Amino acid sequence: VASGRKSITQIKVLMSLTKLHTPALILNLNRLEANAAAMAARLEKHQVTLRPHLKTAKSADVAAVTRKHGAVGIAVATLKEAEYFAQQGYSDLQYPVCITPDKYHRAAALVRQGASLGLILDSLETARTLSSFAEHEGIRLKVYLEVDCGEHRTGFSMDDPDFLVAAGVLNNSDQIDFQGVLSHGGHAYYCSSESEVRAVAEQERSIAVTAAEMLRNAGIACKEVSIGSTPTVRFSESFEGVTEVRAGVYLFGDLFQAGLHTCELNSLAISVLTTVISYNRRTQRIFVDAGGLALSKDKSRARGAPEFGYGQVASIDGELFQPQLIVADVHQEHGEISVEETPELQQLGIGARLRVYPNHACMTAAMYGSYHVVRGTSTEVETIWEKTQGW
Amino acid sequence: VASGRKSITQIKVLMSLTKLHTPALILNLNRLEANAAAMAARLEKHQVTLRPHLKTAKSADVAAVTRKHGAVGIAVATLKEAEYFAQQGYSDLQYPVCITPDKYHRAAALVRQGASLGLILDSLETARTLSSFAEHEGIRLKVYLEVDCGEHRTGFSMDDPDFLVAAGVLNNSDQIDFQGVLSHGGHAYYCSSESEVRAVAEQERSIAVTAAEMLRNAGIACKEVSIGSTPTVRFSESFEGVTEVRAGVYLFGDLFQAGLHTCELNSLAISVLTTVISYNRRTQRIFVDAGGLALSKDKSRARGAPEFGYGQVASIDGELFQPQLIVADVHQEHGEISVEETPELQQLGIGARLRVYPNHACMTAAMYGSYHVVRGTSTEVETIWEKTQGW
Repeated sequence: VASGRKSITQIKVLMSLTKLHTPALILNLNRLEANAAAMAARLEKHQVTLRPHLKTAKSADVAAVTRKHGAVGIAVATLKEAEYFAQQGYSDLQYPVCITPDKYHRAAALVRQGASLGLILDSLETARTLSSFAEHEGIRLKVYLEVDCGEHRTGFSMDDPDFLVAAGVLNNSDQIDFQGVLSHGGHAYYCSSESEVRAVAEQERSIAVTAAEMLRNAGIACKEVSIGSTPTVRFSESFEGVTEVRAGVYLFGDLFQAGLHTCELNSLAISVLTTVISYNRRTQRIFVDAGGLALSKDKSRARGAPEFGYGQVASIDGELFQPQLIVADVHQEHGEISVEETPELQQLGIGARLRVYPNHACMTAAMYGSYHVVRGTSTEVETIWEKTQGW
Repeated sequence: VASGRKSITQIKVLMSLTKLHTPALILNLNRLEANAAAMAARLEKHQVTLRPHLKTAKSADVAAVTRKHGAVGIAVATLKEAEYFAQQGYSDLQYPVCITPDKYHRAAALVRQGASLGLILDSLETARTLSSFAEHEGIRLKVYLEVDCGEHRTGFSMDDPDFLVAAGVLNNSDQIDFQGVLSHGGHAYYCSSESEVRAVAEQERSIAVTAAEMLRNAGIACKEVSIGSTPTVRFSESFEGVTEVRAGVYLFGDLFQAGLHTCELNSLAISVLTTVISYNRRTQRIFVDAGGLALSKDKSRARGAPEFGYGQVASIDGELFQPQLIVADVHQEHGEISVEETPELQQLGIGARLRVYPNHACMTAAMYGSYHVVRGTSTEVETIWEKTQGW
């Protein structure tokens, strides 16, 4: 009986942001749903399929929100994520990071378990070894060629003769179900205005579509033209010739995205709940138990956007302070917030709770094993959503 | 029989760095042991007790190495770490992050389970609420007062009259086992030379010892004077009046520490094993599957020290390339290495393995759930050491 009472107490403690162990990752479900709905509506209007990238959320419960808004397939950034989502009932998977021989068996195991897993590659060498592997193993694999659409990260350059040769190798293999081309407009993150992002989006689209045309002209069927990044998908004016777009961080938004104008500050869906642990009168700084690990040390921001330190500070209900308050510095488990110009916050006692919106949601969310889900400005946790981590 | 054979194969696959799933965290046991031994020998000579800070390693197996070299108590940076180490048989624990009321019950649960858990605080308010809590709960708690030794992070300033009042509150409580003072010379990380670190170390020591004297002059017993950070412990010339020192990252070392001259590049004990996934001829960059999550995005380095990007690259056996090669840029799961000036590396095929030494071992290690342990330049994994993560 005693232990029964104890566990009921624990459940109650878990369910209020005033009592939760900190640091903890908080997800505002209303904002997540609104972000998912807005993107789905935009892409429905453009009649292009959205494949949400779950590398940010890493959670089947978040994927379920995108499914509610019409998404079928999803993208992931690691094979561990692919394994997790397959186990959670997501069978239409795409892993848009160049596959390598050491990962063939792990990918094949997923396909044998019934997953449809799209793989990508950007070298003739990999086209050959992957085809041989598929033939040797007697397994049918879905493969895209990655195309460099201007980011100059991975992907075939359009002037690389190996592009068509690799496509031919894949197309001629009985065990490869050749899908087409895929690109990532990641250079949109270096833009400083909507019009610059639009230009990157058009560059991405036109290079991917041109690559598909090159394949078709060479007699190789190109079913899929998969492109995307949250900024380019958000601002692109045309998806002509594109069969699907990928975007991930749009589900949560973050300060970096706000700086790119792809979301508003009042649409940010995740934040870190933290506790005030100290007040330094000399430096007029309060210290919280969310530091470099809890927030990440990522200071990414749009070119020309204001400096947000390691995140923007809100009250326990998620409402941002005005004037803006930032986490100015972090140590492993300490965050520093200057309250010099906000004397009312100097009165926050030890143990007071705050929330911090991150610069880069992907990096911050990756530190946590679960989301504590709230609605709107409520401080009651409605549920806990598990997520995956690591590799 | 078939599944039996399979699991033997899997064990073999796991045991070579050529086959391990990447990214993976590699620990060179010889270097760890040498680092632990060197620090233990130095402090034995100075006749001061070392309390290793396990916030970097977060692993009982690593703690066991420090125990072999004479360490008894350990420090941790989160209550989750305290719980993990208590469960692993480490009962002399110190949690040197200011305690707050929401954490009292969690800390008390550890004490009730038999742990000796040193807590710290830096406000009169907390001294009062913690004493009341201990009295109300009928539990005896070990408490230190944190003192600001010049870092200006947390800790009582020596001119703060609350310091003596808080000490009195704790000392007068029947349930508080008052320990003394504790400080952290974290400002050593902003130094650019050994002599600057020595000056910070002496400042830390003298302020902590002065604080202890203030207590004694006020009739309050001060058993413990606990100070430390890897740089100050490494370079301090005197530990007079100090009862114990704390250091953590010395066990692994990292590029930031090398820049502070507290370790040599050939003593770095952890690195990230990664796989080449792409080669971009146009930009002369190779891409690996260790990006911002696998390496962390921490670019911390000593003032005036060279820029190492997101880590220094080594071959699969852990030997650094000459001339030095760095991870120039990272995306979530992609790292970029320029091979423009190292034409021999342009020949590395897709699937080749490399290792990356991190800028900041604490941040990088935190991303992983285990260490793959090797000896020297061997590429065979000797064992896997589990570790804790999160909060």
